Amino acid sequence: MTAASPSSGSLSVVGIGPGFADWVTPEAARLIHAASDLVGYAPYLDRCELVPGQARHASDNRVELDRARAALRLAGEGRRVAVVSGGDPGIFAMAAAVFEAIEDGEPGWREIDVTVSPGISAMQAAAARLGAPLGHDFCAISLSDNLKPWALVEKRLAAAADADFVMALYNPASHTRREQIRGAFALLRKLKSPATPVIFARAIGRADERITLCDLGDADPDLADMATLVIVGSSGTRLLRRPNGAPFVYTPRGARAAS
Amino acid sequence: MTAASPSSGSLSVVGIGPGFADWVTPEAARLIHAASDLVGYAPYLDRCELVPGQARHASDNRVELDRARAALRLAGEGRRVAVVSGGDPGIFAMAAAVFEAIEDGEPGWREIDVTVSPGISAMQAAAARLGAPLGHDFCAISLSDNLKPWALVEKRLAAAADADFVMALYNPASHTRREQIRGAFALLRKLKSPATPVIFARAIGRADERITLCDLGDADPDLADMATLVIVGSSGTRLLRRPNGAPFVYTPRGARAAS
Repeated sequence: MTAASPSSGSLSVVGIGPGFADWVTPEAARLIHAASDLVGYAPYLDRCELVPGQARHASDNRVELDRARAALRLAGEGRRVAVVSGGDPGIFAMAAAVFEAIEDGEPGWREIDVTVSPGISAMQAAAARLGAPLGHDFCAISLSDNLKPWALVEKRLAAAADADFVMALYNPASHTRREQIRGAFALLRKLKSPATPVIFARAIGRADERITLCDLGDADPDLADMATLVIVGSSGTRLLRRPNGAPFVYTPRGARAAS
Repeated sequence: MTAASPSSGSLSVVGIGPGFADWVTPEAARLIHAASDLVGYAPYLDRCELVPGQARHASDNRVELDRARAALRLAGEGRRVAVVSGGDPGIFAMAAAVFEAIEDGEPGWREIDVTVSPGISAMQAAAARLGAPLGHDFCAISLSDNLKPWALVEKRLAAAADADFVMALYNPASHTRREQIRGAFALLRKLKSPATPVIFARAIGRADERITLCDLGDADPDLADMATLVIVGSSGTRLLRRPNGAPFVYTPRGARAAS
């Protein structure tokens, strides 16, 4: 973290994790506390402790680019701006939008001191709650086709199935977008065993956290909503039964061998 | 986090991130502080503040299963054990080894209260330092063939290249293992543009942090060692030049369109 010079402002893109306060890193807390302006989706800003004199600029969940431009404008005026992002800003969150806005924006924006502060992403929180489903090679795919063709999503799902990656599926659905997760499951059912473990992890770390463990054969894709992260296992992903409590789900580091 | 009953011990697998203290979550710090026994690779334990009366069980970097079994034995004796892992224990770290040890171990071990606490993984730290190279669909692949056939690594690299994922390559090399990263680059050079951005991120968050940005065409795979995380871009990964400082590297959220 380099401090902004008085003449030029600074912009930090800060990840506050999935919602559990004990997953917010000290770096993220420090950057948010030190900011003159907080920019972000309202529910994320609501999770930040108010600092006297700090300006808050809450926005809707979409319009990432507008939000990024507003933050850059403030930093360009010499403000110390923190763009507050859920999860890890570098994983299907605000960081990419900020760099897109810089590249397409005013030349002066390239001189702003921009830093990214990583956070716990939804797939990590979900994995930790279940055991270690991401314990070996995996991929992370956004099912949103707002910014990419659905054919590319299908190509990546098929490649991930063929190469037997564990899959973390982000943005599986929204109020208006239901077809993508249904289409993804229809495709994966053609390519993977019906016994493949599937996890619907909703609002992990929040009061309304809900985890559903099922298998690909009978998984109901409509369990996924905007707040859900879906994990689809590889052929190696296993359930570890326990006498008390739900089974652990984990993916061994290699081919299983009695050891 | 459920507290262990006095009769049965507990085991938490705790991620302390890549090495920067400000990336250790409050949950991880709390679990380490509350543990009666810390088990882990010596350099990770050295990063934990000593608590009077706390027992430390340092081990070598390999032998993950032995370390997991030792931790489970202690928990089985009623101890409150924290297995200290670098990065995120669920991503190419200790969590999977612990569940493998439980599955193959004493039946009583399945009754131990086991929790996993996520952490910042090396790919997230590296991405944050550079900009947002993981800003869209990506995969994480371990190049170690200690526990899986090299042919499977090559299949996954080829699938990731064909479907145009950004790639985070873990365990690229060790003192004794140099061929994997060379083989991986030889394969990727056949499948991807020589202009593809490549990042060698070594010891991120530590005093000897070193980041090398190059392109696939002239990247020297021997820059990678045990402490290096390698990121290979997708066709969309871009360099954002700055008048001052190194370029940012980021992967847009979708096809680039002037906005």
